[in-house]
Amino acid sequence: MKDFPEDSVGLVVPQTIHFDQPLTLASGRTLPHYDLVVETYGQLNAQASNAILICHALSGHHHAAGYHTEEDKKPGWWDSAIGPGKAIDTNRFFVVSLNNLGGCHGSSGPNTLNPETGQPYGPDFPIVTVADWVQSQAGLADHLGIEQWAAVVGGSLGGMQALQWSIDFPERLRHCVIIAAAPKLSTQNIAFNEVARQAISKDPQFHQGHYYAQGSVPKTGLMLARMVGHITYLSEDGMREKFGRELRSGKLSFDFNPQFEIETYLQYQGERFSATFDANTYLLMTKALDYFDPAADYDNNLALALKQVQCDFFVASFTTDWRFSPERSREIVDALIEAGKKVTYTEIQAAHGHDAFLIPIPRYMEVFSAYMNRIADTLEKHDAR
Amino acid sequence: MKDFPEDSVGLVVPQTIHFDQPLTLASGRTLPHYDLVVETYGQLNAQASNAILICHALSGHHHAAGYHTEEDKKPGWWDSAIGPGKAIDTNRFFVVSLNNLGGCHGSSGPNTLNPETGQPYGPDFPIVTVADWVQSQAGLADHLGIEQWAAVVGGSLGGMQALQWSIDFPERLRHCVIIAAAPKLSTQNIAFNEVARQAISKDPQFHQGHYYAQGSVPKTGLMLARMVGHITYLSEDGMREKFGRELRSGKLSFDFNPQFEIETYLQYQGERFSATFDANTYLLMTKALDYFDPAADYDNNLALALKQVQCDFFVASFTTDWRFSPERSREIVDALIEAGKKVTYTEIQAAHGHDAFLIPIPRYMEVFSAYMNRIADTLEKHDAR
Repeated sequence: MKDFPEDSVGLVVPQTIHFDQPLTLASGRTLPHYDLVVETYGQLNAQASNAILICHALSGHHHAAGYHTEEDKKPGWWDSAIGPGKAIDTNRFFVVSLNNLGGCHGSSGPNTLNPETGQPYGPDFPIVTVADWVQSQAGLADHLGIEQWAAVVGGSLGGMQALQWSIDFPERLRHCVIIAAAPKLSTQNIAFNEVARQAISKDPQFHQGHYYAQGSVPKTGLMLARMVGHITYLSEDGMREKFGRELRSGKLSFDFNPQFEIETYLQYQGERFSATFDANTYLLMTKALDYFDPAADYDNNLALALKQVQCDFFVASFTTDWRFSPERSREIVDALIEAGKKVTYTEIQAAHGHDAFLIPIPRYMEVFSAYMNRIADTLEKHDAR
Repeated sequence: MKDFPEDSVGLVVPQTIHFDQPLTLASGRTLPHYDLVVETYGQLNAQASNAILICHALSGHHHAAGYHTEEDKKPGWWDSAIGPGKAIDTNRFFVVSLNNLGGCHGSSGPNTLNPETGQPYGPDFPIVTVADWVQSQAGLADHLGIEQWAAVVGGSLGGMQALQWSIDFPERLRHCVIIAAAPKLSTQNIAFNEVARQAISKDPQFHQGHYYAQGSVPKTGLMLARMVGHITYLSEDGMREKFGRELRSGKLSFDFNPQFEIETYLQYQGERFSATFDANTYLLMTKALDYFDPAADYDNNLALALKQVQCDFFVASFTTDWRFSPERSREIVDALIEAGKKVTYTEIQAAHGHDAFLIPIPRYMEVFSAYMNRIADTLEKHDAR
């Protein structure tokens, strides 16, 4: 048997959980029943007090850590933070990671069968919001016998879900970990999302979202969406350091083939993504981002929205992140302080832009580990009494 | 007859100038002959010493000021800065504005006839560089009997042409006015250009650039290119102030139709642009931007590239411009200082991002006017002797 790294959770097997209770969504529509695909790492303790929920971002899924097969070259998307001895220490925590509703990795979504028609949902899958996801995640907690999470943790769109948890289920989490997120999208964020949506929906292969039946894939649209997205994930400095103005062939070609390294890189990223991700899911995820605005129901006063929260908060941002800049994280921190809540905030020096939240930057991992270990220390002390 | 504003140059008539001398381009290819479409405003003085060349940016053209018909609702693209009593005072200066080679407003370019084939050049029009444009503009100066420009002036890509003029023809301009430009594109700038190019060239209506013959237009690609471009022209703050998260209908629609004001705005801008601009020209213009790097031939030392320049410089940038930020203008200024040249630099407070260079912001117009009027004062004094 292959040796996985010592600090890896090793081989993991996703499970599909079926929910029979209907879920009423923010749009007013109802999902009569649905599936969630889930992975767990570590052991739930007897008191069910050491559970951590991982919420994923735009293109994420349930496979956050470990390997699916011995041949896998890459582990889950947040393997840098989840494992024995890592920031989210699976020797101490029971970690739950799911693919959200509307996703394209096994949970009910556009590319799964609509039980009413026997055909893929496609564009008929309802638009879901961050609050809808939190609702479905609460159902998952019920199913797993977890009354209260030790922490709900997420980066980017995942951090938004953690924030929503603290507002919608104040008694069901003790800590809320929000990394590289924002209390709502900026106008510019929405603008970039709209470019991505137009690229996908105007691709002739999109067929109004019914491309499954046509045996086609709107690859160009997805590729363009990912290219635009990718530019916003990297910092300008990081891009310059990594690619500069380097030319593939060493000299200008005077044609329109990719010639700067950054062009080749973006095309490669875009094409790879378009071969694996579902276009309808991309549209849904960007809408969930655009719609997220927990203060909207509270007179646009985030502090007011956070009045009823009961957990403690850890908020982290990265200096060169221009998608969700440190200023945006500080809006959350300021509102928490105004609401009289406990919050730890760290701003990490990093050249990697928004992507930094996925990268094991030493200072980031130290501060993140320290916070998570304090949670584990406290609950182990408490449970030992 | 309609009354135009008093500070307008009024009705203007473009003229097409044919050049019979072949132009050898940076790519090694040759244009055997070509047309340039030109507008002029004001009067050339007897000494031909009061001529100003205006260089246009990515989507610009020769029509910089005044009106083509009495029914025109909008004047030329830089009417805010060109006219009687304006920053570029047409009572004092003779102003020359042209459509660059490769453009789509009448000068030889992809949408004009290739004399060799009798068909539109299309994708066979050679890739042109900023240095090629400067070369062709020097030919235009010869044609007009202008040995030395009082100033070469441009914003954005236009500013790059002005900078190139100072290097390639040091004796043929007395002043170089560079507004909201950069000494070369950043990796991020190139990345955004590549998204635009991919959007256009992967549009099924593009037909490898031969869409004229097909009677088609790659409208979706052009629309996407313009949407991405437009986001980089506006500042994040400006976008928030202008559009915020305002919803067209006042509430979330839970569908994929444009619902935030910014979505409608970008789509409108993109669609309008795609109806009037040529896709092949867009590709050429972005390549000219990507390739611009006058320091490249001087060991990447801009100060060395500027050693032979003889003119004085005026450089202006805008605080919220993130396409070509003030830092990029300061690179030019620093290199000029290092090379021992005369440079005036101003950084204008403005919320409008890169677009600010087209907007008559009072402080900007004051400083710009002051510089241009000093040029006029000096030459009128000199010519009176």
